[in-house]
Amino acid sequence: MQLQHPYLLFLGDAHDDLAAKTAAGVYQWRPDWCVGQLRLPGCQTTLGLPDMTLEEGRKAGARTLVVGVANRGGVISDTWQETFVNALAQGYDIAAGLHQRLSDVPAVREAAEEHGRLLADVRHPRERFGVGTGEPRSGRRLLAVGTDCSVGKMYATLAIEAEMKKRGMKVDFRATGQTGIFIAGTGVSVDAVVADFISGAVESLAPANEPNHWDIIEGQGSLFHPSFAGVSLGLLHGAQADSLVLCHEPERAHMRGLPQQPLPEIRECMELNLRCAHLTNPKAKFVGICLNTKRMDDAQADRVLKETQDRYGLPACDPVRTGVAAIVDKLG
Amino acid sequence: MQLQHPYLLFLGDAHDDLAAKTAAGVYQWRPDWCVGQLRLPGCQTTLGLPDMTLEEGRKAGARTLVVGVANRGGVISDTWQETFVNALAQGYDIAAGLHQRLSDVPAVREAAEEHGRLLADVRHPRERFGVGTGEPRSGRRLLAVGTDCSVGKMYATLAIEAEMKKRGMKVDFRATGQTGIFIAGTGVSVDAVVADFISGAVESLAPANEPNHWDIIEGQGSLFHPSFAGVSLGLLHGAQADSLVLCHEPERAHMRGLPQQPLPEIRECMELNLRCAHLTNPKAKFVGICLNTKRMDDAQADRVLKETQDRYGLPACDPVRTGVAAIVDKLG
Repeated sequence: MQLQHPYLLFLGDAHDDLAAKTAAGVYQWRPDWCVGQLRLPGCQTTLGLPDMTLEEGRKAGARTLVVGVANRGGVISDTWQETFVNALAQGYDIAAGLHQRLSDVPAVREAAEEHGRLLADVRHPRERFGVGTGEPRSGRRLLAVGTDCSVGKMYATLAIEAEMKKRGMKVDFRATGQTGIFIAGTGVSVDAVVADFISGAVESLAPANEPNHWDIIEGQGSLFHPSFAGVSLGLLHGAQADSLVLCHEPERAHMRGLPQQPLPEIRECMELNLRCAHLTNPKAKFVGICLNTKRMDDAQADRVLKETQDRYGLPACDPVRTGVAAIVDKLG
Repeated sequence: MQLQHPYLLFLGDAHDDLAAKTAAGVYQWRPDWCVGQLRLPGCQTTLGLPDMTLEEGRKAGARTLVVGVANRGGVISDTWQETFVNALAQGYDIAAGLHQRLSDVPAVREAAEEHGRLLADVRHPRERFGVGTGEPRSGRRLLAVGTDCSVGKMYATLAIEAEMKKRGMKVDFRATGQTGIFIAGTGVSVDAVVADFISGAVESLAPANEPNHWDIIEGQGSLFHPSFAGVSLGLLHGAQADSLVLCHEPERAHMRGLPQQPLPEIRECMELNLRCAHLTNPKAKFVGICLNTKRMDDAQADRVLKETQDRYGLPACDPVRTGVAAIVDKLG
């Protein structure tokens, strides 16, 4: 699956910024791919992009309508449906990461068939993957792992990719979640793969490559998250990473969604990830720590980053506040 | 999903005993549920059950035709199809654990609809599971874990269930694989669940129960298997087991299917399983070791079992050779 850009970003009737955070992420990381935003009546947020109708988007070159909004209740509403059917008739592909498949909406499926357009339900992989083998493969790989879900793994890996590109290194970001897939234009939503094929899907996402080429692989979940650790372990084994980056949000009180579940210590989290990573790459090692310090003031953030760096003997960055140059320096 | 017994076991054109090992397992553990076997021309194996036509099976009380044979190439052949269509017309449900869904064969699907019968594709769970929570739940649970795939986890857990039943304990075997599901009449093929829901599926398979009730949960894979460790970890977290049993085949040269991958040491395997199990049950502990000694003579098996028991300070059994009473003694 390869999404065609440029994109027109569909914000629908998003009731706040959070509902449109997928679209915001795509625009932040791939501004050149985004020609405009399409908002329906009632939309309470903006990306600051030009508002466009479907027709205006096509004139501006857009090839794919990206559904960058989380829908309430998981259902594609009638107003959305009408927009999607019109978009297909005007020559757009549509990409979405919704629970409900675009292709499960009869009117949308029929319009796609009639006009020969692609419906990319990135949360529902259609590829058939083999089982993983763990066999050594060429090329170099970095994976972000975390103390929890949603601690900045996508952001960290995209920042590392950008820094490496700036330095002229051979590098690809490998997306494992929906927003990442829109940003990369391709990828595998690993948490949606059948369990038997998690590591195999990641092996196929980041295949053998030139010896000096880096795949920077977006992480998912945490080995310490009771809901999703299986995904994280299959991803760790399939990635066969040489370099690991630990992502953490210092002020998080408990595991996401689970008030009874404390976060692991950074050291404990690094140890378990290393131990498991060594099954498929005995040379795996940590090269840095990314902290999300957005709720701290500068002085506090500086102190926490410095303390973390001293305690673990690794570069500690906040990708937003400090950039990730210190981590990329370690990727020789 | 609940399979209706008694069963008529379909051996098809199985070319050797191994091809019919699912049927053999069902007959071994649930002889009272099996009225006969149905063999097609060319079948090279027998379970020792009476050969029956579909009609004879129905007269003997059979309600479900269980496809107990692995098919070559993963496809349902025309001769099988004919039998399945006839079976549905005669009032059988059909249960299969094939890669190809029964319901994907138009003639079979239509016959099931026409006659109002169930097609149970146990490798393709249709239930929608929630994500796991890891929240403590009542009742007691035992899980088999392994150094590898196919080291006797199903056999060990079924033997433990049988021994506990013999002692009048409250117990249920909880099946996580295809053969186990035919034996239990219900269960979840966890390796076929969407990755996000592995632990959630196991939480629903072995839900809260009376304080003195035991769920004996069939394990899958190994934390040390590069292909399937994600399944094993989600299963471990979802099981929230009080008691773990380690299964191992002493003479295995490498991880199943992966000649380059050595087996872990028993102690290493127990340590990593315990460490991960403690995330959702801090009291989890090992209560025994099951070795598959089928390729050893009696003296050799005795010696290996004794050595294992002494080295790890836990009862070491071969469920076939010695039974599992010593392990059940530890389940107070």
